[in-house]
Amino acid sequence: MSEHHQKPPRPSRRGFLTAAGSLVAAGGVGALAGEAAGAPKTVAKPAIEPFWGVRQGGILTPTQNHTYFAAFDLTTTKREDVMKLLRLWTEAAARLTQGQPVAPFGTDPGVPADDSGDGIGLSPARLTLTFGFGPGLFIKDGKDRYGLAAQRPDALVDLPRFNGDQLVPARTGGDLSVQACADDPQVAFHAVRQLSAMAYDIAEMRWVQSGFNSQPAGQKTPRNLMGFKDGTRQPDRIDETVWVGAEGPTWLRGGSYLVVRRIRLSLEHWDRMNVDFQEKTIGRHKHSGAPLGRHHEFDEVDLSATDADGNPVLPENAHVRLSHSASNDGAQIYRRGYSYNDGVAFTAERWPPWKQGMLYDAGLLFIAYQRDPRTGFIKIFGHSSKFDMLNQFATHVGSGLFVCPPGVKPGEHIGQALFEAA
Amino acid sequence: MSEHHQKPPRPSRRGFLTAAGSLVAAGGVGALAGEAAGAPKTVAKPAIEPFWGVRQGGILTPTQNHTYFAAFDLTTTKREDVMKLLRLWTEAAARLTQGQPVAPFGTDPGVPADDSGDGIGLSPARLTLTFGFGPGLFIKDGKDRYGLAAQRPDALVDLPRFNGDQLVPARTGGDLSVQACADDPQVAFHAVRQLSAMAYDIAEMRWVQSGFNSQPAGQKTPRNLMGFKDGTRQPDRIDETVWVGAEGPTWLRGGSYLVVRRIRLSLEHWDRMNVDFQEKTIGRHKHSGAPLGRHHEFDEVDLSATDADGNPVLPENAHVRLSHSASNDGAQIYRRGYSYNDGVAFTAERWPPWKQGMLYDAGLLFIAYQRDPRTGFIKIFGHSSKFDMLNQFATHVGSGLFVCPPGVKPGEHIGQALFEAA
Repeated sequence: MSEHHQKPPRPSRRGFLTAAGSLVAAGGVGALAGEAAGAPKTVAKPAIEPFWGVRQGGILTPTQNHTYFAAFDLTTTKREDVMKLLRLWTEAAARLTQGQPVAPFGTDPGVPADDSGDGIGLSPARLTLTFGFGPGLFIKDGKDRYGLAAQRPDALVDLPRFNGDQLVPARTGGDLSVQACADDPQVAFHAVRQLSAMAYDIAEMRWVQSGFNSQPAGQKTPRNLMGFKDGTRQPDRIDETVWVGAEGPTWLRGGSYLVVRRIRLSLEHWDRMNVDFQEKTIGRHKHSGAPLGRHHEFDEVDLSATDADGNPVLPENAHVRLSHSASNDGAQIYRRGYSYNDGVAFTAERWPPWKQGMLYDAGLLFIAYQRDPRTGFIKIFGHSSKFDMLNQFATHVGSGLFVCPPGVKPGEHIGQALFEAA
Repeated sequence: MSEHHQKPPRPSRRGFLTAAGSLVAAGGVGALAGEAAGAPKTVAKPAIEPFWGVRQGGILTPTQNHTYFAAFDLTTTKREDVMKLLRLWTEAAARLTQGQPVAPFGTDPGVPADDSGDGIGLSPARLTLTFGFGPGLFIKDGKDRYGLAAQRPDALVDLPRFNGDQLVPARTGGDLSVQACADDPQVAFHAVRQLSAMAYDIAEMRWVQSGFNSQPAGQKTPRNLMGFKDGTRQPDRIDETVWVGAEGPTWLRGGSYLVVRRIRLSLEHWDRMNVDFQEKTIGRHKHSGAPLGRHHEFDEVDLSATDADGNPVLPENAHVRLSHSASNDGAQIYRRGYSYNDGVAFTAERWPPWKQGMLYDAGLLFIAYQRDPRTGFIKIFGHSSKFDMLNQFATHVGSGLFVCPPGVKPGEHIGQALFEAA
């Protein structure tokens, strides 16, 4: 939920892909797996994101419509197990992202299938799988379980407690993260399900969260569940903002840091607020998305503008002001968030009218990438968590910080350079 | 999860629609609400389902990709409040399904907006809203709250307890139901959110469930999370199966009965089973979807087929056999289910190896329509809940039975004939 001052770049490094828009007979899982004769052979518009490369996919890849994020706890005591798991995950991810099952179907009905089969026939749906390492991979409860403690990057801190945090342990942390993004929710879940099955006796799921991102027609900025355009401004120098450079350990150059926050939004409360109050809270006009006092979505945010009485046009505690890079010593992060919607739960509001009852458990699965969380999310949210008017509608209940290693070449596995360095 | 013995009809009564596939400049919410000059005016392929009509939408409408189902408890004591709510809901549904906000935006920023705004710019996405009445509308705790008790249809029974039921009160029942279906999850949620806000001081949400239905390319039968094709067979005489006829009260003719069940599937357990065991459990081949021993998905299910040793090809407790109309005195239901995926939760398995830990809270949001639940779902599941091999992987944790009145003409409200009859 950070704001920046330049036009959004169209992320292009791993761009829209090769096969997008064409008819590729072999592009669907069904075709590869030998769909029964007579079944349709053409798969409409598969879109396949590359897996191998110098960067991991799913970071600057144009945002897909669905995500399934999973955090795992490592349960093994053996370094070789972790390496084995990362090798299995890498090989599986290389297949799954290309629309293939983790292994061909139907070779022997007398054993469990390697692939659960719920992806058969579905488009690859631009699936990306992005892997991250939590602090617990390096050291946990003071124990160097896998001989990696000396490799823990300085920037992989334990996130501080922020003002207002109501983090639930069952939605926080994790030794490994997998962020599956795809234009089909079943494709994203299918992928993580295969990876989780491979982790048997090595790691187990700690928490997961699915999310969606509904794109308006014509590639306009999507609206979040508060009804406001979200993501209008992104960092101006995106590579500098996202990718770890020479300041990081060798094994991490070209990687990034992922901050994930499960932010419940008090939607019922929000919906009862006057529109102009909502706009002052965000700092933008609701319908157009323009900064307060301006007319067009991509007009500059002017922090110094004052009205006829000399009062700031953008209130001192408006979200746009507080999360703006100019309010945070230039700090920027690349946001790639999703909405989440987990139904209703009995909840006591923290604010007037202190409603208690079945309220939405819905909001924002905030996902942000940056080269250093200390000068990124921690800097920005450390500030805005204290003053942002939005906080009375936003409760952070889940959290994680993961370091995402760079991408790999065929034959390598995710994190290989880390293990070779240690 | 019922099986029937004819080729699936292509539901056509309310068919694919009017505007589908065309460019309709006024079809998007943004356009109707006066999007800022210069914004794209064309909305790609909006698809709009009709709202007014002799039947409610969302029953035989071709299944959309997403659903948000909500059950409400009526909290008011006044009959007029219920009528008012149904009138508001009807008017809102007529607008929302056509891609319009519940009221135009931006007329007065000094008051709360009538519409939360998160649907601005999104396609109508074939949104349908289907309304149902639970037993509690007619009588609750022995009280005839709204003077409707005498109108309670005989077929609107209290669902019996089924073998294996592990129903959670917080996911069961409700006085009113709203089933929103759309090809966009944000559109479905947006619709219910507006309706829920209108219910303030009249009704409140009791439970909700979102779901998805991922369509393979080429309109093939979708697969559920067990990896099997689900929905291959539907009733042969669909109108006779679904719509209440002369046997029902006058106000209900052309209506239907909705059974909804939240069925958690033990996916981790299922994935560890041999493929041939899975196939015997379902009674179909996993990859092709053909009945066991046959070759093609739409081959007839032959309950009497035996192998060389004289044993039945379809095991006695296979799901296909037990839910087949021929095993249930001809009973048929029209299934319109979705998968659901609510992450992971600490769960103790009911079956070997009795695993405890973070397991998927995912499965099937079973939705079925029928003209009489006593000769439909209750008949079929009363039988299969006792014997179906599938039950060891399927736990029913939520449930509801609702009577869905017929559709209405402009100027009428949903349920109007019921209130006029009482």
